Amino acid sequence: MAKKIRVGVIGAGRIGKIHTENIKYFIPDAEVKAVSDINIDGIKDWAAGLGIPKIVNDYKEILKDPDIDAVLICSSTDTHSQISIEAAEAGKHIFCEKPIDYDLARIDAVLKAVEKAGVKFQVGFNRRFDHNFKKVKDLILEGKIGAPHIIKITSRDPAPPPIEYVKVSGGIFLDMTIHDFDMARYLSGSEVEEVYANGAVLVDPKIGEVGDIDTAIITLKFKNGAIGVIDNSRKAAYGYDQRIEVFGSKGCVSADNDLPTTTVLSTEDGVVSDKPKYFFLERYTESFVTEVKCFIDAIVNDKPTPVSGIDGLNSVLIGLAAKKSLEEGRPVKL
Amino acid sequence: MAKKIRVGVIGAGRIGKIHTENIKYFIPDAEVKAVSDINIDGIKDWAAGLGIPKIVNDYKEILKDPDIDAVLICSSTDTHSQISIEAAEAGKHIFCEKPIDYDLARIDAVLKAVEKAGVKFQVGFNRRFDHNFKKVKDLILEGKIGAPHIIKITSRDPAPPPIEYVKVSGGIFLDMTIHDFDMARYLSGSEVEEVYANGAVLVDPKIGEVGDIDTAIITLKFKNGAIGVIDNSRKAAYGYDQRIEVFGSKGCVSADNDLPTTTVLSTEDGVVSDKPKYFFLERYTESFVTEVKCFIDAIVNDKPTPVSGIDGLNSVLIGLAAKKSLEEGRPVKL
Amino acid sequence: MAKKIRVGVIGAGRIGKIHTENIKYFIPDAEVKAVSDINIDGIKDWAAGLGIPKIVNDYKEILKDPDIDAVLICSSTDTHSQISIEAAEAGKHIFCEKPIDYDLARIDAVLKAVEKAGVKFQVGFNRRFDHNFKKVKDLILEGKIGAPHIIKITSRDPAPPPIEYVKVSGGIFLDMTIHDFDMARYLSGSEVEEVYANGAVLVDPKIGEVGDIDTAIITLKFKNGAIGVIDNSRKAAYGYDQRIEVFGSKGCVSADNDLPTTTVLSTEDGVVSDKPKYFFLERYTESFVTEVKCFIDAIVNDKPTPVSGIDGLNSVLIGLAAKKSLEEGRPVKL
Amino acid sequence: MAKKIRVGVIGAGRIGKIHTENIKYFIPDAEVKAVSDINIDGIKDWAAGLGIPKIVNDYKEILKDPDIDAVLICSSTDTHSQISIEAAEAGKHIFCEKPIDYDLARIDAVLKAVEKAGVKFQVGFNRRFDHNFKKVKDLILEGKIGAPHIIKITSRDPAPPPIEYVKVSGGIFLDMTIHDFDMARYLSGSEVEEVYANGAVLVDPKIGEVGDIDTAIITLKFKNGAIGVIDNSRKAAYGYDQRIEVFGSKGCVSADNDLPTTTVLSTEDGVVSDKPKYFFLERYTESFVTEVKCFIDAIVNDKPTPVSGIDGLNSVLIGLAAKKSLEEGRPVKL
Repeated sequence: MAKKIRVGVIGAGRIGKIHTENIKYFIPDAEVKAVSDINIDGIKDWAAGLGIPKIVNDYKEILKDPDIDAVLICSSTDTHSQISIEAAEAGKHIFCEKPIDYDLARIDAVLKAVEKAGVKFQVGFNRRFDHNFKKVKDLILEGKIGAPHIIKITSRDPAPPPIEYVKVSGGIFLDMTIHDFDMARYLSGSEVEEVYANGAVLVDPKIGEVGDIDTAIITLKFKNGAIGVIDNSRKAAYGYDQRIEVFGSKGCVSADNDLPTTTVLSTEDGVVSDKPKYFFLERYTESFVTEVKCFIDAIVNDKPTPVSGIDGLNSVLIGLAAKKSLEEGRPVKL
Repeated sequence: MAKKIRVGVIGAGRIGKIHTENIKYFIPDAEVKAVSDINIDGIKDWAAGLGIPKIVNDYKEILKDPDIDAVLICSSTDTHSQISIEAAEAGKHIFCEKPIDYDLARIDAVLKAVEKAGVKFQVGFNRRFDHNFKKVKDLILEGKIGAPHIIKITSRDPAPPPIEYVKVSGGIFLDMTIHDFDMARYLSGSEVEEVYANGAVLVDPKIGEVGDIDTAIITLKFKNGAIGVIDNSRKAAYGYDQRIEVFGSKGCVSADNDLPTTTVLSTEDGVVSDKPKYFFLERYTESFVTEVKCFIDAIVNDKPTPVSGIDGLNSVLIGLAAKKSLEEGRPVKL
Repeated sequence: MAKKIRVGVIGAGRIGKIHTENIKYFIPDAEVKAVSDINIDGIKDWAAGLGIPKIVNDYKEILKDPDIDAVLICSSTDTHSQISIEAAEAGKHIFCEKPIDYDLARIDAVLKAVEKAGVKFQVGFNRRFDHNFKKVKDLILEGKIGAPHIIKITSRDPAPPPIEYVKVSGGIFLDMTIHDFDMARYLSGSEVEEVYANGAVLVDPKIGEVGDIDTAIITLKFKNGAIGVIDNSRKAAYGYDQRIEVFGSKGCVSADNDLPTTTVLSTEDGVVSDKPKYFFLERYTESFVTEVKCFIDAIVNDKPTPVSGIDGLNSVLIGLAAKKSLEEGRPVKL
Repeated sequence: MAKKIRVGVIGAGRIGKIHTENIKYFIPDAEVKAVSDINIDGIKDWAAGLGIPKIVNDYKEILKDPDIDAVLICSSTDTHSQISIEAAEAGKHIFCEKPIDYDLARIDAVLKAVEKAGVKFQVGFNRRFDHNFKKVKDLILEGKIGAPHIIKITSRDPAPPPIEYVKVSGGIFLDMTIHDFDMARYLSGSEVEEVYANGAVLVDPKIGEVGDIDTAIITLKFKNGAIGVIDNSRKAAYGYDQRIEVFGSKGCVSADNDLPTTTVLSTEDGVVSDKPKYFFLERYTESFVTEVKCFIDAIVNDKPTPVSGIDGLNSVLIGLAAKKSLEEGRPVKL
């Protein structure tokens, strides 16, 4: 067997821990050699239990470790761009959680640093690797629906985040819809050239008070002539609602929600089936494994990563345009 | 049994014939006493077979017949408003196929004439009476989904009409989407206050050449704060695609397509179920009966008709706003 | 147009009325010229409303009427065989509601009389004409599932009949399962050669007290090597449960229940869809039209009827074998 | 944390490997301390990669190791009973793959040895732990369907095993249906008291030549009055077909197949969804983890195991009765 890719995980919060465990259990071509976290005490037991040899407070120690080939940047959003640049300069391949940054200049600096260093760079848009959405994309690529005409994405959270989080989230378009913007680009195989956003505060007035919205319909025009629409809500009473539909000249392909079981109960009161899986980590479990597997594969076989820096940039560009559209009440060209 | 409502049918094309037969077979409180058509020879055999006592060329003969209580106006669209006005003046209750007119002044004249005459007036938005959509509305009224937040309508035809028809159709928004605008008003229980239309010519370039579009996504803002989206295509390869979804504070209710059978075939090649019913008359069969039943009921029991002249007016207003939005590339307030 | 087939309806109970109305509204090649019922007063208004020229007490008046081409025998079960024989002798084509009789000698006498008279004879196994089951059969005939191996029929009533009816019903196998036996023969395209019946009284002990059962699983061996199973219950809390599945060498085809609407409600409490249609007349509406249409067509075009006297006989034979199997606790050969 | 349960895995074929990896990755309360296999060379690399400290040829070395608390017996079927007895005598808790044995005397000896030693004993009926079937059982226990009346199990393999395997398999009832017999007992919450088996050779004549069948319908009578039916085929062209349905006094609960994705493709050719998962390890993945988790939990918390020796015995008893029923062409009491 070839040498394993030696990975350092920067930031061992919820998603950092998941990636670490996934690499250990499911990705034989890689091993986690080091983990850093600003709260080192909080992760010691967990990391020791996994047999991780190096646990540090400062991510810079990972970057200067010559035995590390690649880093997974899972720290807080505001540190992504800075650490990405330093990691590139240190010659590490980079898997960076979304978003790279909300500031276009800083994203640009990251992309330049990555290009200069010649390292692999992948953004954590995990939904592209979801079994359902991947299959939709595959069927489109096989020509089953002909040319895409209409792209529809339904993306509704089971419950809004805490209001303190909403305040610093960058707004619904950059925090939540950004995944859908990436999905729209992925499914259409084209770039968005115009955005129009309708927004409302219908779930919780507090979200409005801090300047955000909680319900939205965003329409998109794509360069290839297709049109699209995303609808969002911060609160779907029945769970996490994640569906897509692509309609084309020869047909339509859609993916419905994943259900915990296929059980159906028929009684006098009706015919009842399961609600969608509630939690995003449960819904997208295997996509988190697959995205890192693909990242490792891109390193091992020197291939382009499946989600590039440009993908990271463009989804932010659409998000900023949607924000502007909502503020100005008009469609905005990119 | 009370006296039957005596009906005259004006215009015995496809829909006029359907209403006539429906009254005969399924509406015991009414009887068709007269039918008029400009092509009287073409309908004689059909009308005689149904035992209709009076078959005339000129609709005015129906209007001046004192034995007629109500008329169904099923003639060509450009005659709807003129005949409606005359029928009101003749004191006949009126069931008028959609649209009343595309000209707001003429619609206004109809509404005034109807009000002055004190006759019943109903517009032929049959989809409100569809078993699926009616049930969706009922569940909303029962409070099952709480306050509506997002209204989604998918409305795609199996094949575009002949290009000669497209030319005189008034454009996709007044010809096709008008049904969806009415459905949006019906489901939301509110009025549309802003429209934004995205359109494209993706099905057939000839449709573009005559100044129309064949693919559209239209977003709506409602007075009650809800938002909505309609997507249209003139050609769905798999049949007539008619679905709705209303998402609210407590849940979501949706109606999928009706299928000809529940049959499922599982083989090596996949698991295959039926395509949606292809033809609108087959899909909406029972709604055409129910709408006329309700019209007759409104007369018999002196109740408001379930689809008023204002409903006819407002859907045209939204259609005109959508047209303007598409032309000017911006949201348009009503 | 060719001369219409002139029909006499014998027995205007629930099913006789349905056939009469169906002929009037939906079968242009036939007309009901006479109706007989032992309770003539109870049907006068109804028959007059439909414009039926002749209403009589005694069915013999229909049989001797030279203007009647065909009769529909919808009287009580115990009169079916006697009237069939007389009708054959009178030279009338015969549509006989199921069962012909429970006595094999009398069925035999009917078949002989029909053969001698050379008239058409059809038994009212309407389910063969159901849209779902017809499509299943068509897919089998098209070879989509290869050779049938396993045939499964689920047939559960929404509620048991009154106990007075149960007493004289002939038992569940001849009263209820007989439809499923015919369906098994229809789907398999083969004859049953062995039956084994498991029965239980689980719905209502009173049914057991009068010597019947209310829950059953019946297995079948077919001459062509396939095997099959029917499950019955007199009471499904969620409605009328009518499903079939045919599994073969190349795949499987199934038909699920028909639902009143496609509506789905998703809330915190679950995802709820409609219950199956509750009432057999609502579930099988169009099959009652189609079976008579086919009967008329067989007369007009001098073709074999789609459900023959042998079909009527064989389903009774299977029912009697199932009864014996249950009584003796062993498989019974036919 | 409490001391981990130290496990020895006896037999590292397909299922032994799966259990070993599952313990390592998903069961924190246990650790695999030793693995034995008669082909020790074939597993060395695999075991070393997992960091298993002890790899031996002879299972007896595991049994006499005082540092082993429990064993998983995953060796060939003919060795299950012998090793179980020895393991019990060595004081090890035992998880034994199904079946314990096909010989009733030997099963009896195992149960006695286990009882005498006072060790935990669990049989590997993994399907009880499947997410779908577990939920069906839970809903029954919650009383949602009232008293069970009819239990239906569909269990069809995607392809028959090699003919060499069929020869020594003990026949379809002991090899394949045994899982369904256990499921029937689990779902009914009752014991089977009579079996009647219908069988046929429809998939492959070679299976008939070696004295087995490949298609079966088996009916069951339960002590609690319920009745049931299982249908089996060795070859379902569309994949692994695993469905259950339990019908009761208040309703019906069913579990359909798991699909790889929720994707639906609608084109002119039809509406196509995914086929069921093809391979049993893919279909039942998580059940293999859960069953061992429950076994470890029974040890840690000194609880009864969820699948007892009696469960192992009774399913074999039903299998033998089904065999006899088929041979003698009559129902067989247990």
